[in-house]
Amino acid sequence: MNATLPEIAVDAARVVAELKKLATFSAEAEVPAGLPEPTTAVSRVVFTEPDLAMRAWFTGLCEEAGLTVRVDPMGNTFARWGDPAASGAVGTGSHNDAIPHSGMYDGTVGVLGGLEAIRALQRAGFVPVRPIELVMFTSEEPTRFGLGCSGSRVMTGAMEAAEVAALTDPEGRSFDDVRRAAGFSGDLADARLAPDHFHAFVELHTEQGPLLEREGLDIGIVTAIAAPLAAEFEVLGAGGHAGAVLMPDRHDALCAAAEMVLAIEAAAKSSGAVDTVTTVGEFTPHPGHGNSIANRVRFTLDLRDTDGDRRDAAWAKIRDGIDAICARRGVTATHRVLNADPPAACYPLVVDAVADAAAGLTTKRTISRAYHDSLFMARVCPTGMIFIPCRGGVSHRPDEFASESAIGHGVLVLARTLARLATST
Amino acid sequence: MNATLPEIAVDAARVVAELKKLATFSAEAEVPAGLPEPTTAVSRVVFTEPDLAMRAWFTGLCEEAGLTVRVDPMGNTFARWGDPAASGAVGTGSHNDAIPHSGMYDGTVGVLGGLEAIRALQRAGFVPVRPIELVMFTSEEPTRFGLGCSGSRVMTGAMEAAEVAALTDPEGRSFDDVRRAAGFSGDLADARLAPDHFHAFVELHTEQGPLLEREGLDIGIVTAIAAPLAAEFEVLGAGGHAGAVLMPDRHDALCAAAEMVLAIEAAAKSSGAVDTVTTVGEFTPHPGHGNSIANRVRFTLDLRDTDGDRRDAAWAKIRDGIDAICARRGVTATHRVLNADPPAACYPLVVDAVADAAAGLTTKRTISRAYHDSLFMARVCPTGMIFIPCRGGVSHRPDEFASESAIGHGVLVLARTLARLATST
Repeated sequence: MNATLPEIAVDAARVVAELKKLATFSAEAEVPAGLPEPTTAVSRVVFTEPDLAMRAWFTGLCEEAGLTVRVDPMGNTFARWGDPAASGAVGTGSHNDAIPHSGMYDGTVGVLGGLEAIRALQRAGFVPVRPIELVMFTSEEPTRFGLGCSGSRVMTGAMEAAEVAALTDPEGRSFDDVRRAAGFSGDLADARLAPDHFHAFVELHTEQGPLLEREGLDIGIVTAIAAPLAAEFEVLGAGGHAGAVLMPDRHDALCAAAEMVLAIEAAAKSSGAVDTVTTVGEFTPHPGHGNSIANRVRFTLDLRDTDGDRRDAAWAKIRDGIDAICARRGVTATHRVLNADPPAACYPLVVDAVADAAAGLTTKRTISRAYHDSLFMARVCPTGMIFIPCRGGVSHRPDEFASESAIGHGVLVLARTLARLATST
Repeated sequence: MNATLPEIAVDAARVVAELKKLATFSAEAEVPAGLPEPTTAVSRVVFTEPDLAMRAWFTGLCEEAGLTVRVDPMGNTFARWGDPAASGAVGTGSHNDAIPHSGMYDGTVGVLGGLEAIRALQRAGFVPVRPIELVMFTSEEPTRFGLGCSGSRVMTGAMEAAEVAALTDPEGRSFDDVRRAAGFSGDLADARLAPDHFHAFVELHTEQGPLLEREGLDIGIVTAIAAPLAAEFEVLGAGGHAGAVLMPDRHDALCAAAEMVLAIEAAAKSSGAVDTVTTVGEFTPHPGHGNSIANRVRFTLDLRDTDGDRRDAAWAKIRDGIDAICARRGVTATHRVLNADPPAACYPLVVDAVADAAAGLTTKRTISRAYHDSLFMARVCPTGMIFIPCRGGVSHRPDEFASESAIGHGVLVLARTLARLATST
C-alpha cells in the first residue's frame, strides 16, 4: 500500500454483476457442450444491434458516475472525470466488442474495471490533478472489417481515417456506411487525438494466457506487447469430379492449403522461441462439396511474436514454404497483408507506477502476446498494461473466466496506478 | 454398322440445343474467371425451383415424342415407348440434377441423349419388341440430402424408403417433407421397382476422366463401376486466442484436420493402384475467425476404388492414420459413414451389345471411376454404360464440355444398343 494514496475499496462484486449484465448484450451464440462451467457464449460485433444497445447502457453507467461522455466519429467513447477541455489526461480503457462464440471477459474487464477504478477513487475522496478518462475503443476485434484495433489506429494516426473508412464487411458494406447507419456522424479523421490529449494510458486486461495462473500470481506487469501480422491467402488449383480425376492428375487446392497450414505451424514451432505463434483460423474451400475437388481455398494467417525481427523471419519462412508447395503441386497462391505492426515497449513511467500500485500482491513482469489498443496508444503517450490471471489461459471462448478476486486485484492496482499518474506532472 | 438394325440418323445438333436449353434451368451460379470456353455454370439442386421447372419442360419433350410419362413418389420420371403395362422393358437414362458451380453435361447427356436415341429409332421406323423406357433419376447428386443416387437406391431396394425419407437437408427439412412440398405424393416405398420391370439397363454418360480424350477414342465400353465410400469427420480440439496460447499448449483442430487431409491423400497415393482416389471437398472450421484457434473442424471424405477390397484397405489405413494424429495432437475425431457401396460389374449381355453397337467407332473397355445410378440398377437387371470423351476429363465444373460430335457418337451407340436389347428375348 502506498502511503501517499487514500485507502481504496474496490467493489469487485459490482464489476462482476455489471460484466454479467454486459454479457446479455449478445447476438445468439451457440454454447458448445463439454466446456467447464461457468461458460457464457457472447457475440457482439461492432455496429450490430447488440453493440449499439450495449453502448447506450454503458453510457448510462458512466453518466451515473458523474463522468462527461463524448463519442468520436469512429464510435470511440470517452468518459471523463475532470475538466472536459483540459489536455494531459490519464487514460484507461479497453474494448467491449466480442467475436462470435467468445466469452464475457476479454476487453470488458478493462472497460467496466476502469469505470469501477474511477468510482473507487471517487468513493475514497481522491481528487485528481489531471483528468482521468475512460475509453471504450471501437472494433478492437477484426471480425467485421478484417482489421483489429481500428478505433485506436485512427485515434493515434497509426492508420489514415480514409483507409479505415473504405474497409468492407462480408456483405460488402464499407466501414463508413455502416458507422453512419449506426448513428456515428462527422469526419472520421476528426477521431485523431490531439498530441497532448493523454499524459499516459494504462489498460487492465485478462492475461489470455496461462502463465499467471500456473505460477499462482495476482498481477502481470506488462513490459511489451507482441508484434502482430495478419494476412489472407488464396490458393488456386484445379477442380473436378471426386471420382474421376486420378491422383497423379490432381492439383487439389484443399490438399495444397492443408500442407500450407502445416508449414505455417512448423514455422512458429521452429522459430527458436516460444514467443512465436501462428494460427490459421479461417479456411474456406470452393466449391465446398464432398464430391468435388476444391479449385480454390481462402485462408487466414495470424502471426505474432514479441520480437519484430523474429516475427519477420517467420513470415519469410512461411512465404518460402508456401512457394515451394505451390511449385510442387502445380497450384498458385496469392496473399494480402491485412496488418503488420511493430511490437511496443511499455513506458517506464507507467510500468513503475503499476509495479508500485501492486505492492502487497504477487506479481511478475510479463509480455502481452495478444495485441491490444495499447499497442497503438503506445505510439502517442506513455503506455502500460495490467494483467490478471484467467482460468486455463483461455480466451476467445465461451469458457473464458476470471474470478471476482482476480478482477478485484486488477481494479485495485488500476485505481492506484491512475491515482499515481493523475497526481504526477 | 449392324445389318439387322435399320439405318439410324442421330440429330446431335438438336441434343446440343436441348442441353443448352436445359442449362438455363439453373440457380444463379458464379462463373469463375480464367476457365476455357465454352463454360456454363449450372446449379440445379433436387426439388428446388430450377429442378421443378426443368422437370415440367422435360416431361413436355417426352410427351412430344409420344412417350407415356409416369412419375414415382421419389420423383423418378419414366418415359416409355411401348405398352405401359408390359414388364421386361429396356431402360436407359441418367440424372438432370447438378451440384452448385457445375456444368451442363454431367448426367444430362444420358437423359436428353436417351430421348434422342428413342426419337432416332422412331424416325428409322424401328419397331421394338420390348418397351423402351427412359428414366430421369431423382437426386443422383448428394448435394442436398448428403446421399447420392437416392432415386435409384430406393428403386432397386439398395436402401429402404424410410431411411431416405428421414434424410435432412442443411435447413433441417426431411427428404419426405421436401418432396411432398415439391408436389410428389404417395408412399416412397412404392418407388421400389417390380423385379421384372427391366430386362436390361444402359446409361450414356460423359467419361468425367481424361482417358478417352488422351487416347483419341470415340467410345468407352464400361465393364465395371467403382466402389464409392462417403464419410464425414468431426475433429474436436481446444480453441483459444490466436495470440495468447503458446504452440506447445495447443490442440488446434484445424492443424489436426489439415494433417488428416494429407493422410487421406497419402492413403490413395500409396494404395498400389491408380484406381484408388480420395477427396476432401468440404472443410469447415469453428468458430472460423482469423484470430481464434479452431476448436472444431468438420470435413468430408470421398473414397473410391474399382476394387472393393482395396477400397476397404485404404479406408482402414485412413482411420488408423487419423487415430494416430489424434493421439499425437491431443484431439479427438469421430466419423459417420454416409454410404459404402460395393463395386458393380457390368453384365456381359449389355457390354456385348454396346461393343457390337460401336462397330465402326474407336473404342476401349474401361471402368467408371465416378459412380452412377447404374451402380444400383446393376443390382436388379443386366446393366452397362457407354462413355463419351469430355474435354480435359473435367466434370463438376462450369467448363465441363463434350463436343456435338462426341455426343452424336454416344447417342448412336446408345440407340443401336437399345434396339438390340429391345429385340432380344
